Amino acid sequence: MSEAAETLEGWYALHDFRTIDWVAWKGATAEERETAKHDLMMLINEWSAVESRMEGSLAMYAVVGQKADIMFINLRETLEELNSAENAFNRSGFAKFVKPVYSYVSIVELSSYLAPPGSDPMQVPEVAARLKPILPKAKHICFYPMNKRRMLNDNWYMLSLEERKNFMRSHGMIGRNYAGKVKQIITGSVGFDDWEWGVTLFADESLQFKKLVYEMRFDETSARFGEFGQFYVGNILTPGGLTELLNV
Amino acid sequence: MSEAAETLEGWYALHDFRTIDWVAWKGATAEERETAKHDLMMLINEWSAVESRMEGSLAMYAVVGQKADIMFINLRETLEELNSAENAFNRSGFAKFVKPVYSYVSIVELSSYLAPPGSDPMQVPEVAARLKPILPKAKHICFYPMNKRRMLNDNWYMLSLEERKNFMRSHGMIGRNYAGKVKQIITGSVGFDDWEWGVTLFADESLQFKKLVYEMRFDETSARFGEFGQFYVGNILTPGGLTELLNV
Amino acid sequence: MSEAAETLEGWYALHDFRTIDWVAWKGATAEERETAKHDLMMLINEWSAVESRMEGSLAMYAVVGQKADIMFINLRETLEELNSAENAFNRSGFAKFVKPVYSYVSIVELSSYLAPPGSDPMQVPEVAARLKPILPKAKHICFYPMNKRRMLNDNWYMLSLEERKNFMRSHGMIGRNYAGKVKQIITGSVGFDDWEWGVTLFADESLQFKKLVYEMRFDETSARFGEFGQFYVGNILTPGGLTELLNV
Amino acid sequence: MSEAAETLEGWYALHDFRTIDWVAWKGATAEERETAKHDLMMLINEWSAVESRMEGSLAMYAVVGQKADIMFINLRETLEELNSAENAFNRSGFAKFVKPVYSYVSIVELSSYLAPPGSDPMQVPEVAARLKPILPKAKHICFYPMNKRRMLNDNWYMLSLEERKNFMRSHGMIGRNYAGKVKQIITGSVGFDDWEWGVTLFADESLQFKKLVYEMRFDETSARFGEFGQFYVGNILTPGGLTELLNV
Amino acid sequence: MSEAAETLEGWYALHDFRTIDWVAWKGATAEERETAKHDLMMLINEWSAVESRMEGSLAMYAVVGQKADIMFINLRETLEELNSAENAFNRSGFAKFVKPVYSYVSIVELSSYLAPPGSDPMQVPEVAARLKPILPKAKHICFYPMNKRRMLNDNWYMLSLEERKNFMRSHGMIGRNYAGKVKQIITGSVGFDDWEWGVTLFADESLQFKKLVYEMRFDETSARFGEFGQFYVGNILTPGGLTELLNV
Repeated sequence: MSEAAETLEGWYALHDFRTIDWVAWKGATAEERETAKHDLMMLINEWSAVESRMEGSLAMYAVVGQKADIMFINLRETLEELNSAENAFNRSGFAKFVKPVYSYVSIVELSSYLAPPGSDPMQVPEVAARLKPILPKAKHICFYPMNKRRMLNDNWYMLSLEERKNFMRSHGMIGRNYAGKVKQIITGSVGFDDWEWGVTLFADESLQFKKLVYEMRFDETSARFGEFGQFYVGNILTPGGLTELLNV
Repeated sequence: MSEAAETLEGWYALHDFRTIDWVAWKGATAEERETAKHDLMMLINEWSAVESRMEGSLAMYAVVGQKADIMFINLRETLEELNSAENAFNRSGFAKFVKPVYSYVSIVELSSYLAPPGSDPMQVPEVAARLKPILPKAKHICFYPMNKRRMLNDNWYMLSLEERKNFMRSHGMIGRNYAGKVKQIITGSVGFDDWEWGVTLFADESLQFKKLVYEMRFDETSARFGEFGQFYVGNILTPGGLTELLNV
Repeated sequence: MSEAAETLEGWYALHDFRTIDWVAWKGATAEERETAKHDLMMLINEWSAVESRMEGSLAMYAVVGQKADIMFINLRETLEELNSAENAFNRSGFAKFVKPVYSYVSIVELSSYLAPPGSDPMQVPEVAARLKPILPKAKHICFYPMNKRRMLNDNWYMLSLEERKNFMRSHGMIGRNYAGKVKQIITGSVGFDDWEWGVTLFADESLQFKKLVYEMRFDETSARFGEFGQFYVGNILTPGGLTELLNV
Repeated sequence: MSEAAETLEGWYALHDFRTIDWVAWKGATAEERETAKHDLMMLINEWSAVESRMEGSLAMYAVVGQKADIMFINLRETLEELNSAENAFNRSGFAKFVKPVYSYVSIVELSSYLAPPGSDPMQVPEVAARLKPILPKAKHICFYPMNKRRMLNDNWYMLSLEERKNFMRSHGMIGRNYAGKVKQIITGSVGFDDWEWGVTLFADESLQFKKLVYEMRFDETSARFGEFGQFYVGNILTPGGLTELLNV
Repeated sequence: MSEAAETLEGWYALHDFRTIDWVAWKGATAEERETAKHDLMMLINEWSAVESRMEGSLAMYAVVGQKADIMFINLRETLEELNSAENAFNRSGFAKFVKPVYSYVSIVELSSYLAPPGSDPMQVPEVAARLKPILPKAKHICFYPMNKRRMLNDNWYMLSLEERKNFMRSHGMIGRNYAGKVKQIITGSVGFDDWEWGVTLFADESLQFKKLVYEMRFDETSARFGEFGQFYVGNILTPGGLTELLNV
């Protein structure tokens, strides 16, 4: 048996993808649409207030392509709060005009692969900030879930801790080259959802997602051991953008 | 041919995941909703009474994310009783407001991998209790189905009984470290459903699911031989919580 | 090229899984439901009469869990008769209250792997009976489709006839231990449906399905070469049970 | 790089599987049904006329099991004509009572693996006939798509032309044993649809499909290199049979 | 770690597949259909105007088979513009008669595998034109997404840059044989969608798609390292063809 790396966990995360039922939305009366938009705005205001109180965070993006129309990310201290948030959405007047398409349950995670030996990561002030982050308001988002592969000779979980540390070090070095261009939040989902990790990237220049993920693919950590789920890419959805999206 | 380990079986289990049809629920009249809630409560009372009579057990959790809204687990002595329970639900007035999303048929199982040689597990009083368990009322639940892999050199079923015993021993040791934090119920589903086992974990602290499953993944039993299905995580649903969930 | 084992074929089989549209069923008037039930009973009577005339056979089981509500198996001399049977169901008044969920087309098959050399299986009277069987009225049923694997070194179809005979012999020996407990009908579906075989098990004690399939999994025939589809388990559906199921 | 075998191509093929919406069909008025049937007959007549003019061909079969109710095969000179045919169906009055379930786009193909060296296949008169075939009116049909495998050591496309020729020769020899029993039409779909080839078999005795495909599976070409999609089996649908099918 | 090849990126691309809801379309009044067609034409005119201004490009094809009815490709400078285009479609009066079926988000890409060492591809005028291309108006289109494989010994991303260059050189040579017959646009989708690349081929003779893709399959780059998604093939949809398609 190989030794697991220690991880630190922060806020729980719910990535919640919804698609608009355009036939229902266009078939509604102007009044019904106003009520629905009002309900949605109330909810967004509530969720933003949670962020202001530093008890969670909210991101809202328009997904490009048919996979979804809107992607919400809510961060909260507990699974109960996450469930309350989604139920509040489902009970809202806006929900009858959207269909659920995909969601992902995970928890903000920092792994200690890169920590200098002997240090206590929790003593580093920025570590705490990274575990309970205010989600960036970058122009673009990219989300994908992933596993570490367990296929015959390419079995991440059969490597020694030392080997994994070396792999992760070179992997992390690529990420560092994108500092200032791409902000990355890793969430762990072992025991919570169908993949082992969720990767959420934020950038003002969307091409940086491609450059970063492509460069990493040649790194042995990804090349031999990475298994990837669906990729979602989106544009930030401001209140104004939301109004425009829903304006029929 | 390798020798199969002996297993002991107890109650049959039906994990039943349902999602609320929010459009129908909100579109119903207050009276229709009252009738539906009343029907649901009657059913839950009946199932709880079965538990009181020690003829089965019930767990009810709110699933986090879009995979489902409610997860019921019913344990019963026979497949006929399980089928009656699901049919009673389907015929109830509440059922027209929910959609079936996933179910799992299995039977509570104890394997004798860890039994000391020569002992008769059925003589151990707590074994009987573990085969017909009252489901914990922990704050959180985690469910996932799994297989033992049969892929070329990583073929669990081609190992000798001795090898499997050794693997399972170290596997079990990890579980023991979580005693008091995570309660685990293993159900066997070979011949009953699409995976070989169902794993149902109960904990008051949801982070323990991640820690346990992640640590186990480095154990050779999981690393080389574990194949995992979908993961469901949820919060306990008390009658009060159910009322709140359905309050529109 | 390896030599194929000879097979004997009997009646064609259609495994037909349907789920009840409970919302439609409960929304129907009592009269509509009576008409629908009458139509269904007429059909079942017709199919039973076919069995009485020894021109086919019928089994009807309630499937446990959400995969389906009712499973019909019809055996017939020809594919045309099978198609007529399913079309009669689809045109019946009951069909508008059920949805198709899965079906499987195959033909009752006996392989000659186990025949003593030089013997002519068709001369054995019970062989003919096994090729055109009256389906047991056991309390429980288990159905799953399967393939023989063709994956690199684990390629069943690259083995010699002699090797396959040896594997099948030990495989068959396990089955023989369940004589009197589990009745097994093998149907071949190469060229007819998506898997190579269908396995239909009948037992009065449902736990025997698990014991048999689990024990076989350690046999090299299954361990290295078995690939399995979905498993369906059910309880026999008598006319009385059917009435109870549909009583809303 | 290995050398591709030369292929000859003839008519484009659209395999078009549809299932009847029985609830809608039975809910329609007798007049609506008459109109719909009339529209369908008109279309079939048009398509048959194309066959009479030797500008294409038509086959119509009733699919056994729930995968589909009706399977049309249209052969045409161009993709434009195929698209016109499916659009004509979709715009017809019958289309609102059927749902699309699966289709396959390919082109009739002869490979030169088996041609004697130095010969020009196009000089053989029957080759031209096989490239633009009138579809047989056999009692039964079997359709499945397939790939040649590319998995590590079992990689068809890494074999030399000579090796592939040898494999195909022995493969073809099996087929020849079924001459007069099974008529086979191979259509290529590389660049057109999700598998590399479609195999369409015609026989008056449906059991021959099983015997042929099963025997071939032991041939190294299939055993090591064949990957198969869904199998569809059906009975010929004459105008009389179609009327009977739709008679509610 | 192996070195990634440099890539050049141009316009973002949205491949957008829609299927017509024929029941709704035929059930609409003539006036509703006229309004819907008018809305669609307005949108196509807008998108064509974008192409005239050299700020993007549009292709519109009728997909053969049931996978979709219409395929739009829009090229734009930014993801925001792509999202605006799809939202404009979804809000249009035509959208209620179509259902979304598949979409693909990517960016026009040129790789430098084939560039002579020391050259700066951006200095070549035609490179710029290829990065922001006006989509051909060829009679036929073929689209498929693909990955480079990472399976044990067949792992593209573990090859050295030199090895990959050699593979791509011979791969490119095949493509060059189709110059004048097939026009190919490669779009990169790492970080944007579920596969790594999209391949869009244009040809006046549809058989060329098959010949090109089949020939390439024997090239080691495809044979060992290519993994392919769904293939879509279509015929160009002129305004006249669109009118004909929608004429019920």
